[in-house]
Amino acid sequence: MSELIMNLEAINERLAASPFNRWLGLHAEQVSPERAQLRMPWRAELEGGKGMTHGGIFACAIDAAAFAVILAAKGQSGPTIDMRVDFHANAIEGDFVITADLLRAGSRIATVDVRVQSAAGRLLASGRCVYAAVR
Amino acid sequence: MSELIMNLEAINERLAASPFNRWLGLHAEQVSPERAQLRMPWRAELEGGKGMTHGGIFACAIDAAAFAVILAAKGQSGPTIDMRVDFHANAIEGDFVITADLLRAGSRIATVDVRVQSAAGRLLASGRCVYAAVR
Amino acid sequence: MSELIMNLEAINERLAASPFNRWLGLHAEQVSPERAQLRMPWRAELEGGKGMTHGGIFACAIDAAAFAVILAAKGQSGPTIDMRVDFHANAIEGDFVITADLLRAGSRIATVDVRVQSAAGRLLASGRCVYAAVR
Amino acid sequence: MSELIMNLEAINERLAASPFNRWLGLHAEQVSPERAQLRMPWRAELEGGKGMTHGGIFACAIDAAAFAVILAAKGQSGPTIDMRVDFHANAIEGDFVITADLLRAGSRIATVDVRVQSAAGRLLASGRCVYAAVR
Repeated sequence: MSELIMNLEAINERLAASPFNRWLGLHAEQVSPERAQLRMPWRAELEGGKGMTHGGIFACAIDAAAFAVILAAKGQSGPTIDMRVDFHANAIEGDFVITADLLRAGSRIATVDVRVQSAAGRLLASGRCVYAAVR
Repeated sequence: MSELIMNLEAINERLAASPFNRWLGLHAEQVSPERAQLRMPWRAELEGGKGMTHGGIFACAIDAAAFAVILAAKGQSGPTIDMRVDFHANAIEGDFVITADLLRAGSRIATVDVRVQSAAGRLLASGRCVYAAVR
Repeated sequence: MSELIMNLEAINERLAASPFNRWLGLHAEQVSPERAQLRMPWRAELEGGKGMTHGGIFACAIDAAAFAVILAAKGQSGPTIDMRVDFHANAIEGDFVITADLLRAGSRIATVDVRVQSAAGRLLASGRCVYAAVR
Repeated sequence: MSELIMNLEAINERLAASPFNRWLGLHAEQVSPERAQLRMPWRAELEGGKGMTHGGIFACAIDAAAFAVILAAKGQSGPTIDMRVDFHANAIEGDFVITADLLRAGSRIATVDVRVQSAAGRLLASGRCVYAAVR
């Protein structure tokens, strides 16, 4: 029903405007006004100890994926108000696939559900982000 | 009342065992069984765009600081179960000071409150982490 | 793939064992090992002021629905560890329909996604509950 | 530094304007622009089963206490955006004492930390609420 306000190329430009997103190697693969799918390659610097990816890395990916779907639906976004992350399993090596679903976008806030999966489809983490709308 | 199970030096060794914590430059400055204070220098790669620190970076620091105070009180910890982060203000340049207060450590989980402040004492982000206990 | 461990009738008996669930008029309508759907009638005592349902009421319904799907999948549950609730819209009058999806049930915790809708299908609130497993 | 915008009597009138708050027996005992302390008597209808208070009841009390401190500081409030509740211990009988600390009140949102204790001072639950500002 809703239309795509920002396309894949423009969203990737916006993501890459962040030095930290570039360092993470995050990029969007598919976007619609309801969903954005991002990919992030695993790399040795992401380790949190004990052969696990640092929990904060999943939070970073979740925040970026939520931002991407808001851009797709709205073309712009205010800052993150708050986020929740649940850690379900861990993994190292291989790519991470991050899927953000726009739950609701109102005049004041946007709410996004995000899942992080291994390339093989295993659920690693999930989260919810609330972003402020641009005023 | 409670005693320090792991000291500052050992906690910093554990934090530095994580390649990503090393990349972030996170280190503990003070620890007690109830509180850990960490410091993280700002650097250009942490930028999330528009002169702001990437929201995920605060989540990384919060997760690490919560881990540090659990080590101080318990000597060991299981993985993070979930976390919440609220973003209050943004800042670039200067150090970030992260303070983690152990709210409760039971036989199954530990709950930690964390605040991220600028070097000047401005509240930038706050969070809550639930960690699983080692079984 | 998974099988139903507790059936609808037994789950409703367990829900009704709680005086507060009885007061709320909460009951399960459909259950599977992956999903429980509950219904709760609106009533004047649920008002939080200004023609709105009290926010805490949605939290109560979310907590109960998460418990129901864990019973369906596992037959038993430990207590709630933590929950998050997002409030999307408000409504008074009519029934509330609460749908709980079991995201993951491990040996230590179970994670559940819950949505509260009006009888007409409008999304009113959504939440996530983490329950401890029985040890 | 900040001044009290709504006094104790007026806050209790606003709380009591909610039929559900009246049912709960919630009332404010002390308020300042930074903190509100509420009290709620235990009653048999609050039981969630197994001699425990229903988890949702703590969420209701947390939401109401957060609202009270925002009224004290601002005189008015928009609706709750989201909340988190952590359950630390359970208790029945006796009063619950709920303390809400205003962490930050900006032009768009207010963030509040809340603790629920038994009359004897035992920490039972804690939570965080984000409320929208009135526009």
